[in-house]
Amino acid sequence: MNNVPRCVVGFSIGNRLNSTPTAGLFVWFYRRRRRRRRRRMIKVASFLKAGSEFLDLMESLLCKSSIQSYSAELLSSFIFVFAGVGSAMSSSSLLASSEPEAVLASSSEVRLLMVAVAHAFAMSSAVSLSAHISGGHVNPAVTFGLLLGGHIRVFTALCYIVAQLLGSSLACAVLSLCLEGQAIPTASGSSSRISITGGLVVEGIATFAVVCTVYAARDPMNGPRGITGGPIVIGFIHGANIIVTAPFTGRFMNPARSFGLALMSGDFRNHWVCWVGPFLGGGLAGMVYRCLLSQSSGTGSGLQQDDDADGNSIAV
Amino acid sequence: MNNVPRCVVGFSIGNRLNSTPTAGLFVWFYRRRRRRRRRRMIKVASFLKAGSEFLDLMESLLCKSSIQSYSAELLSSFIFVFAGVGSAMSSSSLLASSEPEAVLASSSEVRLLMVAVAHAFAMSSAVSLSAHISGGHVNPAVTFGLLLGGHIRVFTALCYIVAQLLGSSLACAVLSLCLEGQAIPTASGSSSRISITGGLVVEGIATFAVVCTVYAARDPMNGPRGITGGPIVIGFIHGANIIVTAPFTGRFMNPARSFGLALMSGDFRNHWVCWVGPFLGGGLAGMVYRCLLSQSSGTGSGLQQDDDADGNSIAV
Amino acid sequence: MNNVPRCVVGFSIGNRLNSTPTAGLFVWFYRRRRRRRRRRMIKVASFLKAGSEFLDLMESLLCKSSIQSYSAELLSSFIFVFAGVGSAMSSSSLLASSEPEAVLASSSEVRLLMVAVAHAFAMSSAVSLSAHISGGHVNPAVTFGLLLGGHIRVFTALCYIVAQLLGSSLACAVLSLCLEGQAIPTASGSSSRISITGGLVVEGIATFAVVCTVYAARDPMNGPRGITGGPIVIGFIHGANIIVTAPFTGRFMNPARSFGLALMSGDFRNHWVCWVGPFLGGGLAGMVYRCLLSQSSGTGSGLQQDDDADGNSIAV
Amino acid sequence: MNNVPRCVVGFSIGNRLNSTPTAGLFVWFYRRRRRRRRRRMIKVASFLKAGSEFLDLMESLLCKSSIQSYSAELLSSFIFVFAGVGSAMSSSSLLASSEPEAVLASSSEVRLLMVAVAHAFAMSSAVSLSAHISGGHVNPAVTFGLLLGGHIRVFTALCYIVAQLLGSSLACAVLSLCLEGQAIPTASGSSSRISITGGLVVEGIATFAVVCTVYAARDPMNGPRGITGGPIVIGFIHGANIIVTAPFTGRFMNPARSFGLALMSGDFRNHWVCWVGPFLGGGLAGMVYRCLLSQSSGTGSGLQQDDDADGNSIAV
Repeated sequence: MNNVPRCVVGFSIGNRLNSTPTAGLFVWFYRRRRRRRRRRMIKVASFLKAGSEFLDLMESLLCKSSIQSYSAELLSSFIFVFAGVGSAMSSSSLLASSEPEAVLASSSEVRLLMVAVAHAFAMSSAVSLSAHISGGHVNPAVTFGLLLGGHIRVFTALCYIVAQLLGSSLACAVLSLCLEGQAIPTASGSSSRISITGGLVVEGIATFAVVCTVYAARDPMNGPRGITGGPIVIGFIHGANIIVTAPFTGRFMNPARSFGLALMSGDFRNHWVCWVGPFLGGGLAGMVYRCLLSQSSGTGSGLQQDDDADGNSIAV
Repeated sequence: MNNVPRCVVGFSIGNRLNSTPTAGLFVWFYRRRRRRRRRRMIKVASFLKAGSEFLDLMESLLCKSSIQSYSAELLSSFIFVFAGVGSAMSSSSLLASSEPEAVLASSSEVRLLMVAVAHAFAMSSAVSLSAHISGGHVNPAVTFGLLLGGHIRVFTALCYIVAQLLGSSLACAVLSLCLEGQAIPTASGSSSRISITGGLVVEGIATFAVVCTVYAARDPMNGPRGITGGPIVIGFIHGANIIVTAPFTGRFMNPARSFGLALMSGDFRNHWVCWVGPFLGGGLAGMVYRCLLSQSSGTGSGLQQDDDADGNSIAV
Repeated sequence: MNNVPRCVVGFSIGNRLNSTPTAGLFVWFYRRRRRRRRRRMIKVASFLKAGSEFLDLMESLLCKSSIQSYSAELLSSFIFVFAGVGSAMSSSSLLASSEPEAVLASSSEVRLLMVAVAHAFAMSSAVSLSAHISGGHVNPAVTFGLLLGGHIRVFTALCYIVAQLLGSSLACAVLSLCLEGQAIPTASGSSSRISITGGLVVEGIATFAVVCTVYAARDPMNGPRGITGGPIVIGFIHGANIIVTAPFTGRFMNPARSFGLALMSGDFRNHWVCWVGPFLGGGLAGMVYRCLLSQSSGTGSGLQQDDDADGNSIAV
Repeated sequence: MNNVPRCVVGFSIGNRLNSTPTAGLFVWFYRRRRRRRRRRMIKVASFLKAGSEFLDLMESLLCKSSIQSYSAELLSSFIFVFAGVGSAMSSSSLLASSEPEAVLASSSEVRLLMVAVAHAFAMSSAVSLSAHISGGHVNPAVTFGLLLGGHIRVFTALCYIVAQLLGSSLACAVLSLCLEGQAIPTASGSSSRISITGGLVVEGIATFAVVCTVYAARDPMNGPRGITGGPIVIGFIHGANIIVTAPFTGRFMNPARSFGLALMSGDFRNHWVCWVGPFLGGGLAGMVYRCLLSQSSGTGSGLQQDDDADGNSIAV
């Protein structure tokens, strides 16, 4: 393959589809005749190759197991956001607006605990729901961390994130339709206690902890399917970190959840903050785990290894 | 079997009992002589076949393992409703009626958290109690979802639901006898914050999430007995969704629990709502999982496969 | 063995030690000569047999693994009661006596939740601590239920209960020494809301649920070591049922815990209630599970099967 | 080796490195010629031997898997302290200083529950994060208990503790930078309700329970990797015991956490108390489990057995 002109290779997305059967056939065909018709072939080859790669990509993105993965991500994001945002709305509905100040302060602590427990429980269930199908990401920041760690392809990651955003928006839409009259909990109001940088760092570290836990739950050292209590532990770290971050940032380490809420309330001010913090933390976690903690030596170059046809082989 | 007249096949319940040994013997007997005595046999055959099918059905419904399954469902529903309804009664008993308004508001949040945690913990235990015997449904909506997903027969499902209703009624009766003087928590009063349609949808989605989690916990992809933390996660999704739905609908995604309470309080107003929402959500989850997420290709036609003699082989 | 006189058999405790090697040797010896010296031997035999049985019993009660089992029960009861009673004392220490009434009412709910969570978490840990050594009973009512279900010998059960009472008393003594000035939480004051019979029934049913969960977690259907999340689920059912029973009975389904508290406070009024309710419920659960739900047909006569040398083979 | 002069053996650290290949080669070399050049060699030998031992030690301390272990301990301590201390800071931020006294009392209970839940959930995640890499200690007292139980070398234990202190200090530094204006929760103020001795004993017993749970989770009786729900149960016992100890001692059974907080606040008064109690309890637990409860007879002399090249083979 070393004398295929650069433009062709450059055309291939990520140079990883060369090993698929269709491309291999083409390569064999190409090499047999290359002495004779080299010049003329190059242009045709680049077209054919690009086409075959595109078809391969489409095939792997749209095959049954891929569609199942996207559906599972959509479904578990829907379930997580429904329970999470729903718990915030239901707890605030218990308070009439005429309460004295003292009760509000006391209640805000109970609400925080209640919301954290609801998110933790819902995240455990959502991860266990899709872990064996799509890997149980539920969170775009987790998908980004696994992408940087080399466990998932760029295109699959994009599809996952789109599915997560869809699921979250759907859940927020259903909630705002069914529970009409309830305020939609947005993050913009509560950011006053902390600077934007501080909020970014806190949010990033919280997501860092989440993605590290996801990595540990997926580690092949923990048996063929990772730690058996993986989904439960992933839910727990969400609960603990929501207690830490929610009173300061009002966000929940999950850009998909924030996106759905922003879409419903139409309030996209400072929305980029909801993405930058978690993505920085999640990406850092992916690289730290890949370089520092991963024990299987092949994970450093583990793209081919972990990334099978549908790009989501390692379930939690 | 293609020339057996339609009336005979129509007589067979669900056309699934044909493969039992007795029926097989009959079919062999029937085919050998059909050239000679076709007309005369048909009437006798239809009688014999229906009788043998009825006996087979009775046998499978009343064999030891089936009785064990019904007992397990009754027992775990009893335990779940005892702890769930009991927690609602005990938490309301802590409040004297003379409390000022502010304390009531603050307390209602703690009560909600307490009741949700009690239901979650009790559901985890109830599912783990019967998972290896009856599959750990505990909830008629779960049974309905598994029926639509093709994991359980119609008659077994009916027997399960009867057992669940019995267990729940028993628990409510014991509670109202022992804790006399405590108000029985009914759902009718709290429905004012939300429209009936909204309540139906919220309840349906919450049940949808529960049944999806049950399906994922039973998925053969997760090893021979499903996810090991299955009962715990099923309890968690109950806890999270109770925090969402209870303040609005006052119901708990479980028709059996609602039925027991209605029986005790004699208040069957709007009782159908307690059944329609969960059954819609549970049934939808069963069909979604069957068509979209199930990875074993045989599950689409998985009736014969999953449904063994006692109809409850797949434990969580 | 059918012509050994009744008195000898009656002497043997539970007729179960006959199959031990020493007794077997004696039986062989006895049978060879019985034609000749039957009359004379009987008296000697009964003495020898009783002596050998007594030695066997002592050996099995005092061998290393038995001592380990008793130590594990003592230790896990100590840890459970330390955390459980300690949480009740610490939560009441947060309230000064001069609080207004309204705060007390609101706080009593938070306290109940806190105490229930502490007991649930501590019970999970205590069961997981001793599950692989002694079976993880921690509670005399569980030991009684397993005794009636035929999973443990009478003498072993007695030693377990003594170890549990010792552990609980030790924990209460340490707590009352270290946290001097804190009131010891007793059950006698809070029984006013419910009749004694009602309290017995509620307590019995709650213990029934606990022992059923223990049985399910030990069921060999759930793999060689039972459900993997067994200790967690056993803790959860404690938490749920404490929310139900504690406001009414003030007891916690655990006679060992009640005994330690009564010993510290010197208040043994109505102490028998703490034993009767849980023992009735636990015993009933043992018999129900043995007769109705156990799937291995050998468990009905499962004494020999489950009861190995140290009488505690089945870990959760 | 019996005629190697004492000074050489005394030089070797812990006499355990003799069996490494390099030292073995040297011993073979030494024995062949010892008749002839004994006197002259001894001095050279002692130098060479000490050098080789030092190099072996450095190699085992600085090899890739050891560095991974230290990183994992640092990371999981960081994550645990970030969530734990962060939850204390966030819950106190919900209370303005102008609240009436009654609300403060009511809130202190909710805060305690919230902080305990956050610590429990974070500890579960932190243990599951590093269990398969470093054994999941997270707590210097756990490391000390495993050292006395013979599961880890002195030098490895020291490195673990340094990593834990670093991780904790880093988390406290990040929190005090990001959440500026929030009070750092210190333990010195809340010790007034209990004597120092009482606090030591309570703290010691709580740590004793934690280390016993860690031991049980690591027990090889529970399959090749210990109890599958191990990290969850270890988190639970932290949660239960924090409810017991936090209102009295204001510490959390974790010297690393206390060290980080003391470093940030610059308040090292009574800091030794934070170390003595947990170390006494943890050490006692290590010895009790080793002598009394461990069932594998080899564990009594289990140093060689458990301690492989990187000194952290047994994951939870």
